[in-house]
Amino acid sequence: MENSDIALVRSALAEDLAGYGDVTSEWTVPAGLRGRAVITAREDLVVCGLPLAATVLKAVDSETSFTALVEEGGTAGDRDRLAEIRGSVRSILSAERTMLNFISHLSGVATQSRRFAREVAGTRATVVDTRKTTPGLRVWEKRAVVLGGCGNHRFGLFDLVLIKNNHLAAAGGVRRAVEKAKAARPHYLTIEVEVESEADLREAIACGADVIMLDNQGVDSLRSLVEIARSLEPRVVLEASGGISLETVRAVAETGVDIISSSALTMGAPAVDVGLTLVTED
Amino acid sequence: MENSDIALVRSALAEDLAGYGDVTSEWTVPAGLRGRAVITAREDLVVCGLPLAATVLKAVDSETSFTALVEEGGTAGDRDRLAEIRGSVRSILSAERTMLNFISHLSGVATQSRRFAREVAGTRATVVDTRKTTPGLRVWEKRAVVLGGCGNHRFGLFDLVLIKNNHLAAAGGVRRAVEKAKAARPHYLTIEVEVESEADLREAIACGADVIMLDNQGVDSLRSLVEIARSLEPRVVLEASGGISLETVRAVAETGVDIISSSALTMGAPAVDVGLTLVTED
Amino acid sequence: MENSDIALVRSALAEDLAGYGDVTSEWTVPAGLRGRAVITAREDLVVCGLPLAATVLKAVDSETSFTALVEEGGTAGDRDRLAEIRGSVRSILSAERTMLNFISHLSGVATQSRRFAREVAGTRATVVDTRKTTPGLRVWEKRAVVLGGCGNHRFGLFDLVLIKNNHLAAAGGVRRAVEKAKAARPHYLTIEVEVESEADLREAIACGADVIMLDNQGVDSLRSLVEIARSLEPRVVLEASGGISLETVRAVAETGVDIISSSALTMGAPAVDVGLTLVTED
Amino acid sequence: MENSDIALVRSALAEDLAGYGDVTSEWTVPAGLRGRAVITAREDLVVCGLPLAATVLKAVDSETSFTALVEEGGTAGDRDRLAEIRGSVRSILSAERTMLNFISHLSGVATQSRRFAREVAGTRATVVDTRKTTPGLRVWEKRAVVLGGCGNHRFGLFDLVLIKNNHLAAAGGVRRAVEKAKAARPHYLTIEVEVESEADLREAIACGADVIMLDNQGVDSLRSLVEIARSLEPRVVLEASGGISLETVRAVAETGVDIISSSALTMGAPAVDVGLTLVTED
Amino acid sequence: MENSDIALVRSALAEDLAGYGDVTSEWTVPAGLRGRAVITAREDLVVCGLPLAATVLKAVDSETSFTALVEEGGTAGDRDRLAEIRGSVRSILSAERTMLNFISHLSGVATQSRRFAREVAGTRATVVDTRKTTPGLRVWEKRAVVLGGCGNHRFGLFDLVLIKNNHLAAAGGVRRAVEKAKAARPHYLTIEVEVESEADLREAIACGADVIMLDNQGVDSLRSLVEIARSLEPRVVLEASGGISLETVRAVAETGVDIISSSALTMGAPAVDVGLTLVTED
Amino acid sequence: MENSDIALVRSALAEDLAGYGDVTSEWTVPAGLRGRAVITAREDLVVCGLPLAATVLKAVDSETSFTALVEEGGTAGDRDRLAEIRGSVRSILSAERTMLNFISHLSGVATQSRRFAREVAGTRATVVDTRKTTPGLRVWEKRAVVLGGCGNHRFGLFDLVLIKNNHLAAAGGVRRAVEKAKAARPHYLTIEVEVESEADLREAIACGADVIMLDNQGVDSLRSLVEIARSLEPRVVLEASGGISLETVRAVAETGVDIISSSALTMGAPAVDVGLTLVTED
Repeated sequence: MENSDIALVRSALAEDLAGYGDVTSEWTVPAGLRGRAVITAREDLVVCGLPLAATVLKAVDSETSFTALVEEGGTAGDRDRLAEIRGSVRSILSAERTMLNFISHLSGVATQSRRFAREVAGTRATVVDTRKTTPGLRVWEKRAVVLGGCGNHRFGLFDLVLIKNNHLAAAGGVRRAVEKAKAARPHYLTIEVEVESEADLREAIACGADVIMLDNQGVDSLRSLVEIARSLEPRVVLEASGGISLETVRAVAETGVDIISSSALTMGAPAVDVGLTLVTED
Repeated sequence: MENSDIALVRSALAEDLAGYGDVTSEWTVPAGLRGRAVITAREDLVVCGLPLAATVLKAVDSETSFTALVEEGGTAGDRDRLAEIRGSVRSILSAERTMLNFISHLSGVATQSRRFAREVAGTRATVVDTRKTTPGLRVWEKRAVVLGGCGNHRFGLFDLVLIKNNHLAAAGGVRRAVEKAKAARPHYLTIEVEVESEADLREAIACGADVIMLDNQGVDSLRSLVEIARSLEPRVVLEASGGISLETVRAVAETGVDIISSSALTMGAPAVDVGLTLVTED
Repeated sequence: MENSDIALVRSALAEDLAGYGDVTSEWTVPAGLRGRAVITAREDLVVCGLPLAATVLKAVDSETSFTALVEEGGTAGDRDRLAEIRGSVRSILSAERTMLNFISHLSGVATQSRRFAREVAGTRATVVDTRKTTPGLRVWEKRAVVLGGCGNHRFGLFDLVLIKNNHLAAAGGVRRAVEKAKAARPHYLTIEVEVESEADLREAIACGADVIMLDNQGVDSLRSLVEIARSLEPRVVLEASGGISLETVRAVAETGVDIISSSALTMGAPAVDVGLTLVTED
Repeated sequence: MENSDIALVRSALAEDLAGYGDVTSEWTVPAGLRGRAVITAREDLVVCGLPLAATVLKAVDSETSFTALVEEGGTAGDRDRLAEIRGSVRSILSAERTMLNFISHLSGVATQSRRFAREVAGTRATVVDTRKTTPGLRVWEKRAVVLGGCGNHRFGLFDLVLIKNNHLAAAGGVRRAVEKAKAARPHYLTIEVEVESEADLREAIACGADVIMLDNQGVDSLRSLVEIARSLEPRVVLEASGGISLETVRAVAETGVDIISSSALTMGAPAVDVGLTLVTED
Repeated sequence: MENSDIALVRSALAEDLAGYGDVTSEWTVPAGLRGRAVITAREDLVVCGLPLAATVLKAVDSETSFTALVEEGGTAGDRDRLAEIRGSVRSILSAERTMLNFISHLSGVATQSRRFAREVAGTRATVVDTRKTTPGLRVWEKRAVVLGGCGNHRFGLFDLVLIKNNHLAAAGGVRRAVEKAKAARPHYLTIEVEVESEADLREAIACGADVIMLDNQGVDSLRSLVEIARSLEPRVVLEASGGISLETVRAVAETGVDIISSSALTMGAPAVDVGLTLVTED
Repeated sequence: MENSDIALVRSALAEDLAGYGDVTSEWTVPAGLRGRAVITAREDLVVCGLPLAATVLKAVDSETSFTALVEEGGTAGDRDRLAEIRGSVRSILSAERTMLNFISHLSGVATQSRRFAREVAGTRATVVDTRKTTPGLRVWEKRAVVLGGCGNHRFGLFDLVLIKNNHLAAAGGVRRAVEKAKAARPHYLTIEVEVESEADLREAIACGADVIMLDNQGVDSLRSLVEIARSLEPRVVLEASGGISLETVRAVAETGVDIISSSALTMGAPAVDVGLTLVTED
């Protein structure tokens, strides 16, 4: 739905354009002055967020144009042009910071995801994101993760039954928790359960969990648990999670797990540097 | 206004609680089970965001309680308790991730700001933030900056006339831009102008700019420009900006500038690690 | 999230309380008059919607009280009391119609679902809803379905990959569609595919679809397809759909399918009759 | 105001397009595939809701086109085309269910209203709706009633003074209630009062009520009360209400009342069957 | 509905509390300082808007108290106390201007209405407002009119059929316009028609208009038209409108019309002077 | 940001178009009738609000056109055309009142500001507005003030530190309040302080206040305080405020102050008379 971005863009612009608005542009830039601007990369990056930036520009002034020069998910190097803009110079300057904030943040996530994806290339594992995202930006950050070549874990609390320690404690153990969930879930919702020991792993497989999260295990322990799990039920999906960084992800991938989740894709992603250059026209 | 947080919290919670909501908690945790939880630091940090976390919890379930154990801006070490929560276990688990996302992001900004503030201690300079903030979170990120001991630059485009290169180009140089702004501004709005050369600096001072931004200067150049500026007009406020990091900020501060702006306070701040531990009660 | 009901309730109340508001109550009922009212069933029904009615009453006047006398999902017969209300008589009368509209509509869905659930008792099948719901009321209608004893199909387009005829045509057949979806989906999202022939059924099972929808089949055909499917892959979940009514659902259930989806749970559910009786107090 | 539909459409679409959105279409339908679709009737019906469906489609993707082939209020038979759509196949499939839900629900109300209108043809009576409408859809359901050939009763609590039993009890009888309302109302607001006895009817006419609602009367009683009322004041408008169905409405109409209100127009209207057929294009 | 004020209050407060919020109070008033304040009249006035002011205060800080000391519609003289407030001094000061703006504007309308009401005392006429109200404040301005002793004309375009010149031109004259409206209207909606000549007046009465607006007539003409109208149909309601001021309203009232509408009640009402005095407490 | 007007326009239109909408136009004006209308001045005025009126018209019906014939801030005399409109006659009539309400209110403020600006012509003083604006309309009223030739004071509580009596009392006098503010403020925010005596004036200047508000002083006192202030610090900006009217503003301006703030620009501005004339077309 195109509409969902509009609320996000309005709340972002409202941070810049309260009160008397963009006073500097209004008082120093002639009202009728039109110009052309380019948004450029200032380092190597994977592009994400140009459609949001276009929405920002249109929200400031519907009589501007925004032309993306790179596809979402495409790569760009230092000085490469990402987009070209035309319209009132005042409007371009009023929109500049909000456009760049979206692009540099989201391209940062995509670029970080690219690093992770490359690190595990050739293994069976897919690196996926978590729900540790910036409040309000989850849709876009998760899109950036996929554009960078990684995968998505569940979007929210609603699209997967993911039984974690606190649920296990409240339900009374792996078996009881999984059985309760199986009794209650619709036919199509998958059940994943977090385990911290071999005993729990065996119990989880025995009672038919679809996915098993092996949380905070060392690489040796992971390898051993993966072997046990595969021997019990070849179809079960195995996920490693907990403090996995760009430095450790390869070793984890080589343990044979299917899924590696890491908050470093989103919360740990450095923003990338992008800029806007303006050429005014008569 | 207390109301402004509510929209932010609702949009964050909507990311987790669409569709059938928190299916895991609903199906594995008994409806009547009540519990107590603590939010704890897992590393040294400056606290920011507990009031937002409290708003999150109340939005999920108004019959819960949230007690902050550390003041906003206070410090905490690994394993220190930041807040205590009581209420329905389902509600606590449904709110957990959103609460933690706010706290870890904002405390990350506050903690980063603390690092910068310590770095320039004893100099004349204040390190301040920029408008490179996360869309939707500017109010809170800028609050975090102050809690960490740094200062704020302008909030948006409306509370300072800040004439940058693109405005100078459109207006026809420093003198014309400053004069236009002085003619148009209300009596109380300050005028800051970006300069990139000694000639521009002299012109800016000559035409009465209140604040001068020395952008992308090396330390030697900064020191020399500060000296010139002070000799011409002792009251002028001098700001250094452009690519200043934790590593370089001390040297910049020692050039004698008043203000050092750095996007590293916000966009470059690593999230800190915080967790929630639950104790269920009968 | 408690907040999500508030927007629904406000838009419903806005239909009644535009302009000069409840002019009749304001002009004929003394401002200070307080009273007690009961909401009663006027036919046998399964109760759903009392919490929404309570939210309606509070939105009209926060100084009223609403006490549910039956749990959500409980049953009531003609003249049974569902809830007791106290407060300003004007406020109670202003809220009356909106409260009753929610209760009679949602209890109608729950009561209808009860009929379907009873009809298939003792078979392997669960009757589930569809996405043919009233725009704006999906969360509550789907809750009513469960309260009545049936199950839920997917909530929206986001929590299940459900490949239907139009997707098959666009993708180029069952195999290609399922393979594309398997390549793209996160590890936890289930894939269901609609088939209309035995050949498609075999292909769907061969390429690993998790759930198979047997659409618009007669009972004999269903029984035969179920047998084939079970012999090929005992784990596959089988769903019958298409024009299934209260009259035909038992026969469909006896074919051995796991899931029977029917829009009659929601769109075909007659509203039940409920009323409000007021006792004024001095 | 065109704007009012947009909020309704957005909340309806949000039910389908949360989280990762329409995952099936995104993963099985090529991004650039364009197509043409027709919405067709699958039974005889009176059309209502095509403009809303068009708003749905545009909200999903502004680069689609929607052409209504039947006017609002027109009739269609099984297999008749109601609208033609062009655009991205993904977008059409994402919008399909929400479009059809609006059309089948609203055309159901219009079709039901047509049945009632035909039933009373040739009598003095107009059948009108009530405030027993689906929360959030009142504007459209009441439009559907008129398109089907019936009339509207008041929209909300604000456009008619309608004194019912609870008001009479609170005010102290017909005379006092009507007098209070006459003293307070603006000059243009009509006063209707509900009566349950001949004595109340006489009192209502004596004190100048504009409209009298004869609630829950048998046909013989109605005929007699109508005669009395007409003899006392020929201008008074007489309304019958209470449990009137398609089976009983003709007899009620023949008693000589002017207005017959029935919730069966809206709450009792069966949804009609409509479908979308897609032809993809290269 | 209490909710409707909240949106109004939030948009008003957003004008004052954008960006860094109430910087003066935050930086000069101690955080914990509590105080008591009174809102006082600084001239004779009819009070309106105290509940809105209370909502403003609560929106800024829910832990404050607001006690109205005069009822809505009550009168106050210079230095009379209208309300007492307790709470955080910062919060009181942040809310001050918005509270006072509502009270002084709305009490201005109520006070102006009092003047008009007194002017026509003893005549048959009621002075009523128009739709010339401040966008966003219509509910409250129309409430103020009644509190001041005048009456309300229609709220919006929806609660009266008011046929004015442009409609007459489009419809083809009085008879055709009234007949069209009578054919289309629900049974309870009143029809008023604007006439500018005796011929039109006679036609309007002949075709059964309920209310007749005599627009822009001199006093003599009004008196003559009233006499003609009464002789033709004693029940018809007669309204005078067009440029009627406090100076001319008495003479108009004495012509025998029932209703005199004047935009001077709302658009022409001078704001009254009210102030807030603060006593801080330790 | 163009978006900000849309919420304002929607809330204004919602006052007119609730329930069944513009019933008169719908029932008396043919659906297909198109027309041309002009908005004209009915007295001398400075124009403000035409872009808002255009937004109103488009919100009612996006297939209309609105052409402003006078620039914002331009002048018009009685019978001058301000704008030309084309489109469906029903739509034009539905939008008429809301369009005119905005224009007459805002042009009233601009026209009033013109009077004040002329009054002080040739003096050093600029007349500026206050925060005594109509809730919800501040952006536009302050725009109108500038269009009329006056200036703006601070927009809200966030863009100037303005220390008034209540802050002084809470902080413990001028020196302490100014020092606290200077310690806390960002480098660019100006500090203004209200003084009521010569002693306070001297203290304010001594501790470096940027702007000094001389509140409620007589003309002689003002002249004397201005002289003292200028002798102490030539750069300080001096503002007179408190009960200044069109009659007194010239004398105040001649005392030598820089700024004169008056709520009479906004709250005291009479609405101007504007009308819409329609020519229907076949």
